[in-house]
Amino acid sequence: MADAVQPIRWKGDRLELLDQRLLPEKTVYITCRTAAEVAAAIRDMVVRGAPAIGCSAAFGVVLSKGSADAYEVLAKSRPTAVNLFWALERMKKAKDLEAEAVAIYEEDLAANRAMGKLGAELIPEGARVMTHCNTGALATAGYGTALGVIRSAKDKKISVIANETRPYLQGARLTAWELVQEGIPCTLITDSMAGHLMSRGEVDVVIVGADRIAANGDVANKIGTYPLAVLAKRHGIPFYVAAPLSTFDPSIPDGSHIPIEERPASEVTGYRGTRWAPEGVSVRNPAFDVTPAELITGIICEKGVILDPDKDRIKRLTS
Amino acid sequence: MADAVQPIRWKGDRLELLDQRLLPEKTVYITCRTAAEVAAAIRDMVVRGAPAIGCSAAFGVVLSKGSADAYEVLAKSRPTAVNLFWALERMKKAKDLEAEAVAIYEEDLAANRAMGKLGAELIPEGARVMTHCNTGALATAGYGTALGVIRSAKDKKISVIANETRPYLQGARLTAWELVQEGIPCTLITDSMAGHLMSRGEVDVVIVGADRIAANGDVANKIGTYPLAVLAKRHGIPFYVAAPLSTFDPSIPDGSHIPIEERPASEVTGYRGTRWAPEGVSVRNPAFDVTPAELITGIICEKGVILDPDKDRIKRLTS
Repeated sequence: MADAVQPIRWKGDRLELLDQRLLPEKTVYITCRTAAEVAAAIRDMVVRGAPAIGCSAAFGVVLSKGSADAYEVLAKSRPTAVNLFWALERMKKAKDLEAEAVAIYEEDLAANRAMGKLGAELIPEGARVMTHCNTGALATAGYGTALGVIRSAKDKKISVIANETRPYLQGARLTAWELVQEGIPCTLITDSMAGHLMSRGEVDVVIVGADRIAANGDVANKIGTYPLAVLAKRHGIPFYVAAPLSTFDPSIPDGSHIPIEERPASEVTGYRGTRWAPEGVSVRNPAFDVTPAELITGIICEKGVILDPDKDRIKRLTS
Repeated sequence: MADAVQPIRWKGDRLELLDQRLLPEKTVYITCRTAAEVAAAIRDMVVRGAPAIGCSAAFGVVLSKGSADAYEVLAKSRPTAVNLFWALERMKKAKDLEAEAVAIYEEDLAANRAMGKLGAELIPEGARVMTHCNTGALATAGYGTALGVIRSAKDKKISVIANETRPYLQGARLTAWELVQEGIPCTLITDSMAGHLMSRGEVDVVIVGADRIAANGDVANKIGTYPLAVLAKRHGIPFYVAAPLSTFDPSIPDGSHIPIEERPASEVTGYRGTRWAPEGVSVRNPAFDVTPAELITGIICEKGVILDPDKDRIKRLTS
């Protein structure tokens, strides 16, 4: 892989994970030698992004030689991204654990490249593309889902509006960083500014990733995605989701059944060492929301683009 | 005034302003002895909130004995909140400058109490009330506009969902702080979580303040207000605006003509000393957005409640 950013490095007897909590200031890798260490790294956000979580978990199984404990601790690390459970299921059925984990990793990379090509055709020349959270090389085996589409459309002279994505600031810290490195013009805004820019005609297309896609096309993704879809609909702006087949969960009929993770209050009351909220305040911190299929213009996966997604169209392409 | 929080203290020969940039950690007053010092305090967000800006500017005129320079420097401090220009116009016509500034201050306090009473009738028993930015004692002469309504409804066993209000975090720092002091249950969320909570049926009513209301009822308010109104409409949740008559601008036909302030990039790229965005990224920082009248259930002012606001209904009540 020629990409500069390598979030996951498999070293045969250990897994090296780029500590994304320290980006963009510091580039530090954490070494995991057991499934429990990989599970802790997933839970604590050393590695994040649905496809990257799936790949990391697969290597975690290898490190603990496929023990029942390994599956259990990894399955408990984070609840929403279905790629995690999909990867664990694949590992359970595998004969050669290492070969299977490497295959999951390489297939993700190939899926991203394929989505990039398919998705780039949907992006108009010179488009101002809004995205949310980080769906780039850092969120996957490499290259990216929604950000992979943006990368693939670079020659169309596009520019990107990156929502900062509170509370964890993946947009400000990770997406902006990847785009600056890539030389794609990037404007950072707070999540609250997206509606204003749309209302002023300053957004041509929105593209985001996904953590789980229900059978009917409802999409769970980073908190703040749903309001973007509602606003895009109001302003007639196309709203695309880019996600590999590993993100589809046919066992879940619709978005209301997707488990939504609640994360620690400290992510909302401040940032790293700084606390800005007063003591005594309660906090909610749902990490994801659900965008109904009716608000989605199309879902881009490695096998094609599902326009106006619904149960039948999804089943036809993914099965 | 018996309220604990006093953002503006007139001392006859000087104006003391509570430095809201340091809240909730520190309670420090800054002393202004000239209009230029008051203008700088407004520009630098020592004092903020449309009614509080208007009151402060009036005292600034007193300090510089109504000189032409005083009016000029104050008018240039911030562009969006019309209360500033409204207060300056009143001062220009006044014979006794100090008496007029004190009247502006006391009328604002009285208007807030009146809005509180009128607005509280619109809040259902036990309601979960969402609010944005800070519209409390800190944003006014005292008591508050939208937060004044919430205060007045305290006995109805309400609870509040406070949006943190990036980039300046007025919700997290100021609103949460006022509510904790007041003993009203308060849950802090990031702005991106409002849609999720609405979609799950966890919000009964939304109430916000305003920085300028056009003749047709379009409302400029803190950035992030417009998406809340769009989401509230989708979910059938009443959306109220509380603002005194000093916030109405009959000279502006609709929201598209309201000047929207762009503030410094540093507010978006980090917080106080901490920077989290990479070097090389562009930034947009519009401080306000416009909510069209069609999305507003009612505007609460001291003379009454304007339901389904439009040009005629507004003219009838405000003139």
